[in-house]
Amino acid sequence: MRPVLVTGASGFIGREVLGPLVAAGHDVHAVSRSEQPARDGVTWHAADLIESAQVVREVRPEILVHLAWYAEPGNFWTSTENLRWVEASLALLRTFVDADGRRAVIAGTCAEYDWSQADGALREDSTLLRPSTLYGAAKKGLHEVAEAFSAQAGLELAWGRIFFLYGSDEPRGRLFASVARALLAGEPARTTAGEQVRDFLHVSDVGAAFASLAISEVTGAVNVGSGDGVALRDLVAEIGLAAGRPELLNVGALPPREGEPPRLVADTRRLHDEVGFAPSLSLQEGIAVSVHELRSASGDEAAPD
Amino acid sequence: MRPVLVTGASGFIGREVLGPLVAAGHDVHAVSRSEQPARDGVTWHAADLIESAQVVREVRPEILVHLAWYAEPGNFWTSTENLRWVEASLALLRTFVDADGRRAVIAGTCAEYDWSQADGALREDSTLLRPSTLYGAAKKGLHEVAEAFSAQAGLELAWGRIFFLYGSDEPRGRLFASVARALLAGEPARTTAGEQVRDFLHVSDVGAAFASLAISEVTGAVNVGSGDGVALRDLVAEIGLAAGRPELLNVGALPPREGEPPRLVADTRRLHDEVGFAPSLSLQEGIAVSVHELRSASGDEAAPD
Repeated sequence: MRPVLVTGASGFIGREVLGPLVAAGHDVHAVSRSEQPARDGVTWHAADLIESAQVVREVRPEILVHLAWYAEPGNFWTSTENLRWVEASLALLRTFVDADGRRAVIAGTCAEYDWSQADGALREDSTLLRPSTLYGAAKKGLHEVAEAFSAQAGLELAWGRIFFLYGSDEPRGRLFASVARALLAGEPARTTAGEQVRDFLHVSDVGAAFASLAISEVTGAVNVGSGDGVALRDLVAEIGLAAGRPELLNVGALPPREGEPPRLVADTRRLHDEVGFAPSLSLQEGIAVSVHELRSASGDEAAPD
Repeated sequence: MRPVLVTGASGFIGREVLGPLVAAGHDVHAVSRSEQPARDGVTWHAADLIESAQVVREVRPEILVHLAWYAEPGNFWTSTENLRWVEASLALLRTFVDADGRRAVIAGTCAEYDWSQADGALREDSTLLRPSTLYGAAKKGLHEVAEAFSAQAGLELAWGRIFFLYGSDEPRGRLFASVARALLAGEPARTTAGEQVRDFLHVSDVGAAFASLAISEVTGAVNVGSGDGVALRDLVAEIGLAAGRPELLNVGALPPREGEPPRLVADTRRLHDEVGFAPSLSLQEGIAVSVHELRSASGDEAAPD
C-alpha cells in the first residue's frame, strides 16, 4: 500500500487527522513548514507550500489530504495569500497526478455557500454557492478547477466543506479559546448577544472526519460538521459551566457584528450515510474535554520550574 | 498617463489589440515569449508566463490586458496547462495590484456557460455557468477568484467572454483556415453537415473589442461576439464563394461530432450598449478579407525566389 500524504499536518486540524490514519493501518507522511516532534507511524517532511510538490514527487503517495492554507485568524478572510494558496494547491494537484496519485481530499469551507440563503441546513448538491469573502471565493474557484481536472485525469477528488470548530489548542483570537481562557484566568468574558446559530464540531472529530473521507471512496463535496445548530450564546454558556465560572460571562456586552447570517448549519447526510462517519463527542462533551485540557495546560504554564 | 500592458500580445487576438490601443493614444507595452519585430507605439518585452510578473513590476501599467493562455488547437480544451495558466494569471494579478494597477481586462470564454441551456442567446448575467471542459472550468474558476480579489483590492476588473473567431493568420487546424487553404490550393474540403449555429467574429474585431473594453469603465463579464448566429454550413459556403471554388466543398462528408450543442450565440448588449463597441466587418466582409489575405500570402509563398 502506497502512503497517505497530509499537508498542513501540524495545523489545528492536520494534527488530528494523523492518528486516525495511522490507526487505520496507513503509511502516513506529513508535511509541515517547521520540524515536528517524532510521532509513531508518521514520517515528517519539512517543506513550505512550494517545496510540497517536491515531497509529492519523492513520497509518491496514493492518497493526498491537502489541508494547508493561510489561516491567520481574522486576516484569512481577506488576505491576498488566498490567491497564493490557490496557485500552490493547483501546482500540488498537478504534481500529484504526475506522480500517479489515486485520490485527493482537499479542505473546502462552508464559506463557499450563499449565506443569505441559509435558513435550512446547507446541502452539498442543492444550496447555491455564492461566497461573500475572498477566502470563500478562492476555495470555490479552486474546487471548480480541481474538479474538472480530476474528472479528466481520472483522479478521485473529495472536497470537505468545513463548518465551525473548536478545541483547546485552537489559535488565539477564536471564540472558544478567548472565552475559556478568560474564565479560567478569573477574568470576565464579554461577547455579543450571540443569537446566531452555528454548526460546531470538536477539532478531533473534524480531523477524524477527514481521515474517514480520505479512506472512503466518496467523491465530490462533503460537508464536515455536526449537523446540529447551537446559538453562540448557548455555546458560551456551556463554556461557563464547564469552567465553573458562569458568573464571569457578560453576553451582549459587545455590539452585534454587521452581516452575520442568523443560521449556518450543515446537512451531514453525505458525511454520515455515505462516508459512514459519526462524531465521537457531543458539544457538551467536547467543551468539557477542551476546557479540561486548557485548565491542565494553564496549570502547567503556571507551575514553578 | 501610465502604460497599458498586453500579455499574449503576439498571439492571434493579441496582435489585433495593439493597433487600436496605440490609435487611442496609449503608451502600449506588449509581452510575448519570443522577440517581435518593432512596431510603432509599442514597446515589446520578451517574457514567459513566470517572467511576466517582473515586466509588470518594471512597467507599472495602469491597465493590464491579459490574453496569454495555452492555446494549442484541440489540446487546449483538456491540457493540464490550463492549471498552470490559472496559477500564472493569479500571480500576475497579485503583482499588478502590488504595482498600483487600476484596471484589468482578462480573456474569458463562452465555454464557461452551460452549453446545454443555449437555445437563446447566452447572456452574462442570466445564463447559467457550467463549463463542460477543463479549459472552461479553468477560466471560470480564475474569474471567480479574480473577481473577489479585485472587489476587495479596489481593482476594476472586466472579463471578456470570447465566442468564435476566424482570420487569415489563425492557427492551422481551425475551421476557417483549413477550409480556405484547401480551396485555394484547389483541393476538396470535407466538413460535417454543419447544422450547428455559432457566433463568429473576425479576429480584428475581437481585438478591437478588447481594446475598447480596456479603455472603457465597464466591469464584470462582457460577451465578445457578433450577436449573430450562422450555421457552420453557411459559413463554409461563404468561404467557397469568396475563394471562387464552391464546387470543392463536400459538406456532410464527415460524421457529426458528439455532444455539439445546436446553438451558441452571444447576447452582445453589454458590449454594444455599455462598452459602445460595434464590429467593423460583417461576416461576408470578414470572410472576403480573410480569403483575400490568405490568397495573397499563398501567392507570396508560391513566388519564385
